[in-house]
Amino acid sequence: MTLFKQLTPRVEALRLLREHIKPIERTETIPLEEAYGRVLAEDVVSPMDVPPFDRAAMDGYAVRAEDTYGASTHSPRRLKLIGVQGVGELYEKEVGPGECIQISTGSPLPKGCDAVVMREYTHALGEYIEVYSPVYPGANISKRGEDIKEGETVVEAGAQLTPARIGAIAAIGIEVVKVYEKPRVAIIATGSEVKPPGSKLKPGEVYDINSYTLSAVVSSHGGIPIKMGIIPDDVEALEGTIREAVERCDLIVLSGGSSVGTADLLRGVVEKLGRIIFHGLQIKPGKPTLFALIGDRPLLGMPGYPTSCLSNAYLFLIPALRRMAHLPPYRPRIVRAELSRRVVASTGREQVLTVHLINGRAHPVFKESGAITSMSRADGYILIPIGVDVLEEGEKVEVHLFEDTGSLSWSDASPR
Amino acid sequence: MTLFKQLTPRVEALRLLREHIKPIERTETIPLEEAYGRVLAEDVVSPMDVPPFDRAAMDGYAVRAEDTYGASTHSPRRLKLIGVQGVGELYEKEVGPGECIQISTGSPLPKGCDAVVMREYTHALGEYIEVYSPVYPGANISKRGEDIKEGETVVEAGAQLTPARIGAIAAIGIEVVKVYEKPRVAIIATGSEVKPPGSKLKPGEVYDINSYTLSAVVSSHGGIPIKMGIIPDDVEALEGTIREAVERCDLIVLSGGSSVGTADLLRGVVEKLGRIIFHGLQIKPGKPTLFALIGDRPLLGMPGYPTSCLSNAYLFLIPALRRMAHLPPYRPRIVRAELSRRVVASTGREQVLTVHLINGRAHPVFKESGAITSMSRADGYILIPIGVDVLEEGEKVEVHLFEDTGSLSWSDASPR
Repeated sequence: MTLFKQLTPRVEALRLLREHIKPIERTETIPLEEAYGRVLAEDVVSPMDVPPFDRAAMDGYAVRAEDTYGASTHSPRRLKLIGVQGVGELYEKEVGPGECIQISTGSPLPKGCDAVVMREYTHALGEYIEVYSPVYPGANISKRGEDIKEGETVVEAGAQLTPARIGAIAAIGIEVVKVYEKPRVAIIATGSEVKPPGSKLKPGEVYDINSYTLSAVVSSHGGIPIKMGIIPDDVEALEGTIREAVERCDLIVLSGGSSVGTADLLRGVVEKLGRIIFHGLQIKPGKPTLFALIGDRPLLGMPGYPTSCLSNAYLFLIPALRRMAHLPPYRPRIVRAELSRRVVASTGREQVLTVHLINGRAHPVFKESGAITSMSRADGYILIPIGVDVLEEGEKVEVHLFEDTGSLSWSDASPR
Repeated sequence: MTLFKQLTPRVEALRLLREHIKPIERTETIPLEEAYGRVLAEDVVSPMDVPPFDRAAMDGYAVRAEDTYGASTHSPRRLKLIGVQGVGELYEKEVGPGECIQISTGSPLPKGCDAVVMREYTHALGEYIEVYSPVYPGANISKRGEDIKEGETVVEAGAQLTPARIGAIAAIGIEVVKVYEKPRVAIIATGSEVKPPGSKLKPGEVYDINSYTLSAVVSSHGGIPIKMGIIPDDVEALEGTIREAVERCDLIVLSGGSSVGTADLLRGVVEKLGRIIFHGLQIKPGKPTLFALIGDRPLLGMPGYPTSCLSNAYLFLIPALRRMAHLPPYRPRIVRAELSRRVVASTGREQVLTVHLINGRAHPVFKESGAITSMSRADGYILIPIGVDVLEEGEKVEVHLFEDTGSLSWSDASPR
């Protein structure tokens, strides 16, 4: 048995991940209507002005502004109504002095006109319109190109497509966009005792949890989870699966097999195929974590215990994956709360303590080590730094909420 | 022309939406691996204990605790090593007094044993093990059912499935779950001048923006967007499309056609088919908004101007849709910032003011009314209440961030 020679602190581990994990360069061109949440791989430049023409910003009458100067309730200006300009139409004739055209919001401004009088300030009298208030040239008009000019960059490369940005792209008539491909993430469970849900367990066996939690995390942070099954504790099977994953995927995530017990073969296989960047984290839970490069393919070996695995997914996999996917950093929502009871921290390792929030108080959720319910029933977690031995009842703590899965997240959760 | 008779305040509009929109009752049974983000329609009750057996929580030796009492570095207890217990195996024989079994984390505890001594406190001497530290009965063991007990509710009906909750369900071997169906949302653009992106515009025409922004919003808040195309300003076409949408969808969202200009036909069609709950909101932008019931099918008529439409989607469609989808209320992330310049508010209506955030200061983004870039370039918005005429430079404001699309959001954004 070998113990971990040196535990890597969380912040250093994050630095190493950032150093060795590169944003994906492959791109794909997809319909705009499927692009929500994706990241643009090139600037979107407008081929046109928006609006494409001067248009009415209000319902009313298109006029020559000078015809309205001096108008008031007591001394209205009278203009001849020579036509109606609806949206999507184009009044052909030029409007002359003393004339006006009825116009609705969004309609192109007829030739000769330079302003719109709001309907509220007019009165219709047969074929004439009385105007009660003067307008300046340009009043109640949206000028051609006022919103977007031809040649202008509408959304920049690297931007994640929000509803508003998708709208801006639709506004310039573009229906396909070039985006970065989503990283393909191999998800491999290990352990001869691990069986898929739905199967019948024999004594000593447990269900595969980590493939499910990891897939959900991957799909909600811009990746495509590719479940590669459950690999028994067998060197050749493990090596074969990792080799296949290196071929097919951008990132390889294993669970189990990275602690130092008898059945832990991962370290050996990884050392044969590539090089280890760190092994063993100064964090609890989550110590038996491994990060390696197989060629230039990053591999994360997560603890087998579901809580440790999921906790590490939040702390390490999400930042790594979002960097690959060109997504902005993950910023879990943080709330401040009072601790409901005294907590004695573990020494020598930073600690992730899951908590319930009840009436503004943070109640530690703790059952046995590795209890999945300590995560599924928690609202979030607090980080207890190394060197802090105890948190007192009533102390203010920062709770990182679980429910918040990223600044812009999505899942097409079905694995392929 | 009819003006709006009475403008409904935002809070009252939200109350009316809540009153008339019912959470969906249809359910579907789906594979657990596709269930991320969905809402459980029934309690998930455990058919088994987790862990399913007493198991080692540490690597070491399974022992009878009493055999270790009094052990110390100076006075170790010597136990006979009679076998190895790996994970997923089951040591058949009972361990007798003075005997021990090598065991790794997660392995079932052999019969006769009641504790595990961590390997760190032992030394192997051929077929004997020296134990340097005593353990109490139960030490370093996870008891059967400690995490989840048979018959216990693991995740309750109404809960949204996070990674941790999915993990808890996998832990009990369940591979399919009953969830609420996603609401089907008809998205209808109106206006003879509106054309799909990708087509060539004739003079006076503009591209359809709202179908794209609304689809993105719907898919990111638990709905299935069903784009029903662009309907020209024609009573029969509009009525036919609404009738079809009522058949196929749970919620109908139109854009355009709800202001009071000449081409606005929606009100008439809706009055014929159902009843109007409100028409006209005391908010800027977003005034020409309509909410109606066609039978028991809710219909939201949004403004045609893209900014107003999207702004209203954030304020009204998202709360309505999340209620239908059984999702927890939308809580946009809010940050406090100083206003970069004086803003004179519109009187008589609550105002949505889009802002950029630069170095902790909120800069109002404002171009022409309805400019899509005023949203696509904004980081969020502030709400200026009715009755506030002016906000001063340097005043602290609460900015609701756009980037945050909900507490747990997703999209399978392709419309069907």
